[in-house]
Amino acid sequence: MFEEIKERYNRILFPGRFQPLHYGHIEVIKWMLNFGDEIIIAIGSAQKSHMVDNPFTAGERMVMIREALKEEGFDLSKFYIVPVPDIEYNSIWISYLESLLPPFDAVCSRNPLVIRLAKEERYDVLVPPFFLRSEYSGKKIRKKMLSGEKWESYVPPSVARIIKQISGIQRLIDSSLSDELE
Amino acid sequence: MFEEIKERYNRILFPGRFQPLHYGHIEVIKWMLNFGDEIIIAIGSAQKSHMVDNPFTAGERMVMIREALKEEGFDLSKFYIVPVPDIEYNSIWISYLESLLPPFDAVCSRNPLVIRLAKEERYDVLVPPFFLRSEYSGKKIRKKMLSGEKWESYVPPSVARIIKQISGIQRLIDSSLSDELE
Amino acid sequence: MFEEIKERYNRILFPGRFQPLHYGHIEVIKWMLNFGDEIIIAIGSAQKSHMVDNPFTAGERMVMIREALKEEGFDLSKFYIVPVPDIEYNSIWISYLESLLPPFDAVCSRNPLVIRLAKEERYDVLVPPFFLRSEYSGKKIRKKMLSGEKWESYVPPSVARIIKQISGIQRLIDSSLSDELE
Amino acid sequence: MFEEIKERYNRILFPGRFQPLHYGHIEVIKWMLNFGDEIIIAIGSAQKSHMVDNPFTAGERMVMIREALKEEGFDLSKFYIVPVPDIEYNSIWISYLESLLPPFDAVCSRNPLVIRLAKEERYDVLVPPFFLRSEYSGKKIRKKMLSGEKWESYVPPSVARIIKQISGIQRLIDSSLSDELE
Amino acid sequence: MFEEIKERYNRILFPGRFQPLHYGHIEVIKWMLNFGDEIIIAIGSAQKSHMVDNPFTAGERMVMIREALKEEGFDLSKFYIVPVPDIEYNSIWISYLESLLPPFDAVCSRNPLVIRLAKEERYDVLVPPFFLRSEYSGKKIRKKMLSGEKWESYVPPSVARIIKQISGIQRLIDSSLSDELE
Amino acid sequence: MFEEIKERYNRILFPGRFQPLHYGHIEVIKWMLNFGDEIIIAIGSAQKSHMVDNPFTAGERMVMIREALKEEGFDLSKFYIVPVPDIEYNSIWISYLESLLPPFDAVCSRNPLVIRLAKEERYDVLVPPFFLRSEYSGKKIRKKMLSGEKWESYVPPSVARIIKQISGIQRLIDSSLSDELE
Repeated sequence: MFEEIKERYNRILFPGRFQPLHYGHIEVIKWMLNFGDEIIIAIGSAQKSHMVDNPFTAGERMVMIREALKEEGFDLSKFYIVPVPDIEYNSIWISYLESLLPPFDAVCSRNPLVIRLAKEERYDVLVPPFFLRSEYSGKKIRKKMLSGEKWESYVPPSVARIIKQISGIQRLIDSSLSDELE
Repeated sequence: MFEEIKERYNRILFPGRFQPLHYGHIEVIKWMLNFGDEIIIAIGSAQKSHMVDNPFTAGERMVMIREALKEEGFDLSKFYIVPVPDIEYNSIWISYLESLLPPFDAVCSRNPLVIRLAKEERYDVLVPPFFLRSEYSGKKIRKKMLSGEKWESYVPPSVARIIKQISGIQRLIDSSLSDELE
Repeated sequence: MFEEIKERYNRILFPGRFQPLHYGHIEVIKWMLNFGDEIIIAIGSAQKSHMVDNPFTAGERMVMIREALKEEGFDLSKFYIVPVPDIEYNSIWISYLESLLPPFDAVCSRNPLVIRLAKEERYDVLVPPFFLRSEYSGKKIRKKMLSGEKWESYVPPSVARIIKQISGIQRLIDSSLSDELE
Repeated sequence: MFEEIKERYNRILFPGRFQPLHYGHIEVIKWMLNFGDEIIIAIGSAQKSHMVDNPFTAGERMVMIREALKEEGFDLSKFYIVPVPDIEYNSIWISYLESLLPPFDAVCSRNPLVIRLAKEERYDVLVPPFFLRSEYSGKKIRKKMLSGEKWESYVPPSVARIIKQISGIQRLIDSSLSDELE
Repeated sequence: MFEEIKERYNRILFPGRFQPLHYGHIEVIKWMLNFGDEIIIAIGSAQKSHMVDNPFTAGERMVMIREALKEEGFDLSKFYIVPVPDIEYNSIWISYLESLLPPFDAVCSRNPLVIRLAKEERYDVLVPPFFLRSEYSGKKIRKKMLSGEKWESYVPPSVARIIKQISGIQRLIDSSLSDELE
Repeated sequence: MFEEIKERYNRILFPGRFQPLHYGHIEVIKWMLNFGDEIIIAIGSAQKSHMVDNPFTAGERMVMIREALKEEGFDLSKFYIVPVPDIEYNSIWISYLESLLPPFDAVCSRNPLVIRLAKEERYDVLVPPFFLRSEYSGKKIRKKMLSGEKWESYVPPSVARIIKQISGIQRLIDSSLSDELE
């Protein structure tokens, strides 16, 4: 998939779940800064936590992202970090983001559905090149956490530190063991 | 399953998702007109679209159904076509339909849960004979769309035309490629 | 407020609550047909009924509108009549309507908020001239119903008939007498 | 309003908000036991608390009701006490209660809207005679609480005790002073 | 997992779905009474019914539990039986229960997620020993019901009787046969 | 009302609706920085806009706050600015904020209900002295906007500029003219 990028943007929307933030996200953020002045990091599924695919609360994810941006030397004044609860209504999702977020003029994603929804609302879309190694995936990192493998090197040190502070690995394990309430 | 049909009905409720409307639905509609004066086509899961099982919006499905009914020569004045968002509350679903729809005196469905819910609220149920060939299934048609097989012959020409106008096949493919937002 | 109307439209959206449909609405509908081929009548606050400002269910209102359109000699095949539950989220209301309804290219309303929301989403707006006499207002008609005055002449005969069939006046009175559940 | 009461009922539904339970409710409960074997006390607006019209949580109201029934010498095994969140959808409210509550065969209320909704779903309705003195009203009791007047004699001693334990009067005052968050 | 139980509790919360109540639950209830004066039985997923994992309504489950407690000789005045609709928001679930239920000072569960959520809100947790034979599981009982095996001996007689009265087995079968509405 | 402030806090929560941000808020923010290292500005009623009491979207309010903080010379790295949709459930509102926001150890408000809810969850509360002149109130500023009086001096220049850019005064007027959809 190739996207011609035409101009410099005022604000680029970068939606994700960030369960947790990892170096793949950091690479994308660096890349985006070549094309836009400000970045809106929209933390999706903000209402979800304590689930095997969504272990961390929106508040925890917000702190992780902020601490990692500082640690990596980014200028915080270029970023908006905003939790966004799901609406489960794809066709109005972009309008919903428009109401909750500062105006943006481009959307950055590799997710085909996000790309489609953004284009149907006439947004420019930035698709980051796949320089991110395949290990940089929230799902794979959560799997390593669950199986007792090393996961710390895939996330910024501040993210690893926060996950430990909140007993995040044990929470993930407990979430994974839970069948639905019987 | 056998249902004795006792009388002529004023209005028959025909609930479905119509993702998309196909000739199986058309056959059922023809059959229903033997038993009732007016038909309410309730488009379920109205809030869903851009998903692999629910690619089209309620508005798009409403246009497809209306154009197909015209094309097939039905008298539009006998039909109510109504989008109905999900409530995720089975035991009050029939009451919910009663509030949103004109009064009806029978329900037409082959779905065992719909049949049960309707009967628990004391509605007569019409179960159409399975003359519809097994190809006439929304799931199978969406599968053909995804795999690049021919699908146009399973739906009325107007439905095929609208799907093409809205780039429906590409939308379905994009929806199928999307994992949850990562 | 003056709106220059530039062209003929394919489909005009006409949102309202229709509690109940009255001759003011009928006049607007006649007027709109000069400017558009099809009309979408969106029945707002579809989830509300049995309230002093919203006595009738969406299903009842849908039947009233349909019967009145027939009675007044309109061609039903030009109309979409669609119940729309409230979302209580003004800034995405137009997007929500876009998802539930067939595509429209103009909005008809005298309500300043509706006009604003439509224009912010770049729709053409048709503002009907105030030929409707001031008696033609849902609020005034409901008030007459409550105080025992004559109200029948403000609505098409079919609407009056349906209201009587469903004991609508008594329902309105009961709703008005009810404080919140104590 | 006169209601002929035809028979003995298995379970009578008694819906209210019980903000707080007062001797008027106790009188109605005594009266109802002449007509039915079991009583379902449905605590409406269960999600509301810390508001001037709804100061107490559903959990607090449940304890007040239970303690008062014990104190007044009622046989607890005849009562179901059930919190019911609002659905803001009048026409399906009775169906909603049917799904959350044990089956009931009559409804007890003086509220005209409740009476109407129950009758539209074909329930027998018991309208208690207005022996309750007019002071026995939640609204009047809350007003006395706010203005520093004596209120304790209008509620059973256990209710007064619980309200004091939870600093209920101060909570009511704080709620009344709060404009919407500015 | 071992939990040291320190004291006697005033009220122990026992959350579950009770689809249906079985002898495993009865054993846990007996065991809990060694540690607490009152038990709150919170019926989770109260809004769900007519589904293969959730066949019975909250009202039906409430009656089953109450009848079984009576039949087993428990003192009903020690129990609160309360339907609780899902909120799909794990991190505030305990607060939600606090608002709907009488105050409790311990939570009883074997579910790792429930245990974690309760502990994060600083509740004592009672984990019942696994004396319950593995057959005592709602899932296994529903499976037996579906496959025509004997299931009656796993539940108290009153529960079996109610399930038969409401044609529960046929409802479960119908629910299992239903694909999503097509 | 007097609150003894005991210590220095890590993060202070400052909830409001900010319709719009005015110099009263700025004064409170300056005052808070004497007591805490970081401030979380929670923008309440995030889903509301285009209403007479809530004219601006959460996204617009977020930009206003950010631009004003910059303009006033605050260090942006000390602030979290977060939109928070209403939940209409007072007793769990604080838990809801805990899930969406970074951890906080004090709450700053003059609103008696907010103070009570925070204290019931054992938070320290900072009540700012009423140095803010009475003109500094969102309600009064919106009233001036509606009546054509001067309002610009009550808000930071960047806020006034943004309101003009988005035609905010006209939007407020349109919202005020709108009865409910008739």
